[in-house]
Amino acid sequence: MSEIRALLFDTFGTLVDWRTGVMNQLEQWGRARNIDADWPALAVAWRLAHAPALAKVRTGQRDWANLDQLQAETMSELAPQHGLPALGDDTLLDLARMWHELPAWPDTVEGIARLRTKYVVAPLSNGHIALLVHMVRATGITFDALFGSDVFQQYKPDPKTYLGAVGLLGFEPGEVLFVASHPSDLEAAAGCGLHTCYVSRPLEYGADVVVERTPTEGEFDLMVGDLLELATVLESKALHHI
Amino acid sequence: MSEIRALLFDTFGTLVDWRTGVMNQLEQWGRARNIDADWPALAVAWRLAHAPALAKVRTGQRDWANLDQLQAETMSELAPQHGLPALGDDTLLDLARMWHELPAWPDTVEGIARLRTKYVVAPLSNGHIALLVHMVRATGITFDALFGSDVFQQYKPDPKTYLGAVGLLGFEPGEVLFVASHPSDLEAAAGCGLHTCYVSRPLEYGADVVVERTPTEGEFDLMVGDLLELATVLESKALHHI
Repeated sequence: MSEIRALLFDTFGTLVDWRTGVMNQLEQWGRARNIDADWPALAVAWRLAHAPALAKVRTGQRDWANLDQLQAETMSELAPQHGLPALGDDTLLDLARMWHELPAWPDTVEGIARLRTKYVVAPLSNGHIALLVHMVRATGITFDALFGSDVFQQYKPDPKTYLGAVGLLGFEPGEVLFVASHPSDLEAAAGCGLHTCYVSRPLEYGADVVVERTPTEGEFDLMVGDLLELATVLESKALHHI
Repeated sequence: MSEIRALLFDTFGTLVDWRTGVMNQLEQWGRARNIDADWPALAVAWRLAHAPALAKVRTGQRDWANLDQLQAETMSELAPQHGLPALGDDTLLDLARMWHELPAWPDTVEGIARLRTKYVVAPLSNGHIALLVHMVRATGITFDALFGSDVFQQYKPDPKTYLGAVGLLGFEPGEVLFVASHPSDLEAAAGCGLHTCYVSRPLEYGADVVVERTPTEGEFDLMVGDLLELATVLESKALHHI
């Protein structure tokens, strides 16, 4: 951990509160059209449909498709189950773009700004570059670079994504700390030789919903409550910086 | 021009003053080692060695190599011609990295900040991502995304670079304005359907050195003296923005 020069961040759940953002946008969209549904449930169901959709691309069962395309398809399947009317392709794509404008967690903007004074900081997301550009502009987070799935034409947890971002930064895996609220993502990064930091986001799926397991003590290099704590921990270690 | 949503910028010469930056770093490096040479001449010769080195990669005469590798090779050839001692590989790579930390032109940081209020802004450079990350951190320019040659494994003026950046942004070529101080770069971008803006950088090669031809009136969509003028021109047009 003494040679960390860059931090890579998972985005959905780790940096931004997708549930609140998607739920509120869905509700607003429904209100304007006199459509009612259990929006919080639909938001979570939509997110849970991520993993199998990404897996089909990752395992080569289908050609490359970015998150907008995948989210439009999963919403097309979920809509009737949640009492929505039939939705056209343009509407589905508009809904998919709700994932471009999500609120940052309260500590994200300041946390990344503090971390950026010493380290190169960049997202490593299953979102694509266009989505990340919108996220950056909507939240005000300042990054040094953006790593989206379309740069690698592959989704996490494929090693090509972690090692691809490390390579583009010109660092070795051991010089990079990967930060995420999802143990499976961290495990894959650790398997590629990156250092790992678990950040707890207990509200990711809602106040009473536990989807992700809590890591055991010592399972990852660092475990923090938010990004401000991470900044403080790294400052106290007086680690090597760029 | 009414549908511009993003601006892509050439970097060396257009955003940063490579000549002053490289010249000063070479001079400092020489002074520390009691080596003297005509540093301004070496800086310009090094830059002029760019084009043929890039062309070998672009045309497939050799495998992919990033700008650090190419600059190390060209310096290896130039050093004896300019009276430098034989340089080892590590030294050559250190010298090549001088191209990572170059001063912005006086209007660059404020110009990009003003343009960013209305448009997505990103460099499209023959530099690689690691180089651009250093450039961003050294100059304080804030971009929305970075497009380096290693993302596309190809160098400008290959169409793959211009169209690759446009595609990753999720825009159409006609929604993007490419800004550069080099007519050949602008011609290639125009050939891909991008709009074009020539920015005059008369000091790029030194006060009395003219390397680039001056474009004729109307040859490109816009011609400006610096990026502040570009911001003013675009603001006055009240163009569509993201």
